[in-house]
Amino acid sequence: MATMPAVLVGANVGGRPNYMTVAWAGVACMNPPMIAIAINKARQTEKGIMENETFSVNIPSSEFSVETDYCGLVSGSKVDKSEVFETFYGQLKTAPLISEFPVNIECQMRHTLELGSHNLHVGEVVDVHVDEDCLTKGVPDTRKIDPMVYSNSEYCRIGEMVSKAFSVGRDYKK
Amino acid sequence: MATMPAVLVGANVGGRPNYMTVAWAGVACMNPPMIAIAINKARQTEKGIMENETFSVNIPSSEFSVETDYCGLVSGSKVDKSEVFETFYGQLKTAPLISEFPVNIECQMRHTLELGSHNLHVGEVVDVHVDEDCLTKGVPDTRKIDPMVYSNSEYCRIGEMVSKAFSVGRDYKK
Repeated sequence: MATMPAVLVGANVGGRPNYMTVAWAGVACMNPPMIAIAINKARQTEKGIMENETFSVNIPSSEFSVETDYCGLVSGSKVDKSEVFETFYGQLKTAPLISEFPVNIECQMRHTLELGSHNLHVGEVVDVHVDEDCLTKGVPDTRKIDPMVYSNSEYCRIGEMVSKAFSVGRDYKK
Repeated sequence: MATMPAVLVGANVGGRPNYMTVAWAGVACMNPPMIAIAINKARQTEKGIMENETFSVNIPSSEFSVETDYCGLVSGSKVDKSEVFETFYGQLKTAPLISEFPVNIECQMRHTLELGSHNLHVGEVVDVHVDEDCLTKGVPDTRKIDPMVYSNSEYCRIGEMVSKAFSVGRDYKK
C-alpha cells in the first residue's frame, strides 16, 4: 500500500507499558467501531495483547517523528520503552495511552487471525481521547492533529487537498 | 484514524466489474503478503467478493479524484460502474483491475470476519501490477504514484517528508 498511517500501538507487557510503531493499522468496522492491527508474532507487543486482550492505538503529531521511529527500531524485549512517553490509562486499565500524542484510542480485543509472520488483531474501540486543541466544532481535525503517513521508508505530513470527498464525484461524466 | 488510503476495491458482480472506493484498507501480514479491507455488508462489492472469493485493490493517482469519489458516492446496485475505467484481468480471472491506475493488487480471499455493519476480508496478494514509470530502481515510488490520503472528508496528496524511517530514531535520547 502506498499510504499507511504511522501510529504507536500500546500494550502492557508484564504489567509495564510498551509501545511499538505500526503502519499496518486501519478501520475494520463502523458499527461497532473496530480497528485492525497487524503485529509481528515475535514482538513484545504481541505478548502484551494476548496477555491482557487490550491494546491502544496512539496517533503522533509530526513533531514526534524521532520517538515514533525509535519505538519501531528497538524491541521491548531488549529495551524498556516504558519511559519514552508519559503513560496514562483510561477505561481499560491495561491499555497504556501516550499523554504527549493528540489522539489515543482504547481497544478491547475481539478477534485474532493467525496469518503467518503476523497476527491480525481486531479490537473494538472502547474510548477515544482527543486533545481539546485538535478539535474543530467538536470533531477531530486532521490539520491540527498533524499526523504522519508512512511510505517508502519516510514519515510524511499530509499534503494539499486535492478535492472534497462525497462531493467532487457528483461532477463525474463519462 | 487520522490518515487512511483512498483506494478502489474491484470485484466482479454477476460477471461484470464493479469498483468501490474504500478508505478502510491496510496490510494484514508480511509473509505471506495479505491485505485487509472492510466492506459494508449492503454493498454490491460484498456480493462480488463472496461470489468469486477474489478482489482487487487499485491505487489511484491524485488526478483521478473525481472518478474515485464517484465510485464511493454511487452504489453498483443502482449504477453500472463497469465503464468508468478500462478493466483488465491478471492471474485471477475474476478480480477486475483498473488500467488507468498506477498500482493494481490482485487478492485471493482467505478469511472473512463478520464484525457488524462491515465484513473484514483478508486476501492474499497473488500479484501486483505497477506502471513502469512509477518505479525507481525497480521499487514502487510513492512520489511518482502520487496516491491520495483520505481524511476529514478530503482527498489529500502526500506532503513533505518529516524524517527518514528506520533512521531518525537512532538520534533518540531521553
